[in-house]
Amino acid sequence: MSENAKDQLAKGTWLTYRPEIKIMDCTIRDGGLINDHKFEDGFVKAVYKTCVAAGIDAMEFGYKADKKIFAPGQFGDWKFCDEDTLRRIVDDNPTDLKIAVMADAERTNYHSDILPKSESVIDIVRVATYVHQIPTALEMIKDAHDKGYRVTCNLMAVSTIQENELGEALEVLSNSPVCAIFIVDSFGAYYSEQIRALALKFLRAVEGKGIEIGIHAHNNQMLAYANTLEALIFGANRIDATMNGMGRGAGNCPLELLLGFLKNPKFQLRPVLECIQEHFLPLENAGNMEWGYRIPYMITGQMNQHPRSAIKMRAGKNPDDYVAFYDQMIEEE
Amino acid sequence: MSENAKDQLAKGTWLTYRPEIKIMDCTIRDGGLINDHKFEDGFVKAVYKTCVAAGIDAMEFGYKADKKIFAPGQFGDWKFCDEDTLRRIVDDNPTDLKIAVMADAERTNYHSDILPKSESVIDIVRVATYVHQIPTALEMIKDAHDKGYRVTCNLMAVSTIQENELGEALEVLSNSPVCAIFIVDSFGAYYSEQIRALALKFLRAVEGKGIEIGIHAHNNQMLAYANTLEALIFGANRIDATMNGMGRGAGNCPLELLLGFLKNPKFQLRPVLECIQEHFLPLENAGNMEWGYRIPYMITGQMNQHPRSAIKMRAGKNPDDYVAFYDQMIEEE
Repeated sequence: MSENAKDQLAKGTWLTYRPEIKIMDCTIRDGGLINDHKFEDGFVKAVYKTCVAAGIDAMEFGYKADKKIFAPGQFGDWKFCDEDTLRRIVDDNPTDLKIAVMADAERTNYHSDILPKSESVIDIVRVATYVHQIPTALEMIKDAHDKGYRVTCNLMAVSTIQENELGEALEVLSNSPVCAIFIVDSFGAYYSEQIRALALKFLRAVEGKGIEIGIHAHNNQMLAYANTLEALIFGANRIDATMNGMGRGAGNCPLELLLGFLKNPKFQLRPVLECIQEHFLPLENAGNMEWGYRIPYMITGQMNQHPRSAIKMRAGKNPDDYVAFYDQMIEEE
Repeated sequence: MSENAKDQLAKGTWLTYRPEIKIMDCTIRDGGLINDHKFEDGFVKAVYKTCVAAGIDAMEFGYKADKKIFAPGQFGDWKFCDEDTLRRIVDDNPTDLKIAVMADAERTNYHSDILPKSESVIDIVRVATYVHQIPTALEMIKDAHDKGYRVTCNLMAVSTIQENELGEALEVLSNSPVCAIFIVDSFGAYYSEQIRALALKFLRAVEGKGIEIGIHAHNNQMLAYANTLEALIFGANRIDATMNGMGRGAGNCPLELLLGFLKNPKFQLRPVLECIQEHFLPLENAGNMEWGYRIPYMITGQMNQHPRSAIKMRAGKNPDDYVAFYDQMIEEE
């Protein structure tokens, strides 16, 4: 019966594992959006060591932001990920962990700030783009690829892209030298069945091209982990997650939950728990950084809106006035 | 292609709604497991009024516990749900909201404590049973049905039941006078694909019997809402949820998330947000009651264990020692 048809479509069950699944820890990069990338070296080093101990495949440290657009004095070092910044933590990175940075379309001086691979400890350049920036993104992808990096593309705010535009975007990206294209649910707006449909659409677009599909979920509707599993089950092999779910607003798919699901014995949960206990709880308790599911983020997620208004509200005078925020959002819609 | 087959199997999409879907608010009943059912009347009344304003179909207040087993001095009134206790809040319940109580197999003196319907403001008796208690549960179901109630059965800890036992349980329950059978993921151990398979199994068992399938999820792996949606999409029409996710341990499927998904205009989100803001945040901030996703509950959920060890750990001297708890659980497994 048709139930079986669905099972055939799914690429594995919770009892199996696919060795081709690779996890990217985005804790420092996405978490940096909470604190303007001002992490202590000790914290970044703890996350790095934990990734290595836990068998994580890659770790994203931050952005390659253009210093002409973003003043270095106003941001922490992880906004720019200079070579010496990275090497303070990873030295020559004598591990199997791949080092990744994000390069935002239109916010990166990629010609000069992305060095030739031979001069860099970076392994992967992740080009992040909104759909209207794709021409720029394509140039950046080519540039980084020609310099010797593995390049992926994070297609942001997919939930705001029209069907035909998305088709065109996938067409050009699947003919670029990326090794993976990520579905980015920037607003945490998607339900699992939409993620499934998207994963299958993305997979069809890259069929036979040797390009993997990835998923980057946000937890506005408490679905980051569930949606990540849905994409994974239907064939996404590149998975973004963060320790303790740290990330802007409602945060991301928690790495510790993901490791509980994946059955590949190379992944270890215990080092992640240790790191959260020793480094994340103190940070959370200090009260300067807030992340994780909360009702204002739910409201923006349900309305398919950028979380910026919810983040602003949480940082303001009435962080618990859910009703006023809801009324305001309804009014503005 | 087979993708379409799956879509045909699903009973509606996120854009449609099925009027036959009914929501049970379990806030006071499941939340009562955190504080020995010692809620102030004002809080219970606020939840009741909110359910009415939000268009919720039914509200569960607590248990019908046997006073010979549970000493009334040690528990709040909602452990027993005497008629005068309920009427303090709902009077004669001049609303469309149905009043429900839970009757645990082997912990309820149902012969005397469940009054004839004509003498009670209760509409629905929810018989909760572990699989080995089903003979007792069947007697309780018959008793409550004969007294004039709508009766449902909550089949607890489904994740610990062997396949053939589950088949037998569904066989006898589907031939009893219940109007709904609930899948209860007591340990928060299930992934969505397991919930889907269970929902379809339960639905097949009751086919043509006029019995609905329900879902009661726990949030140990942050999947309570996702799993609830999965069951709902595949045909479960009876949905348990709680305001702010309040419930034992990791809590339940948050009602406010569920209302964001359901497109039936009879449901209203705003009153729920108002109630959470005015009544739940103060309770949470007072620090006497803890609920919601936390890593120790994740660990018991991942291991398909009762959350009691995690609850005990959170109430103990080292509530944040995740690693010690993990090591202990691994050792005991």
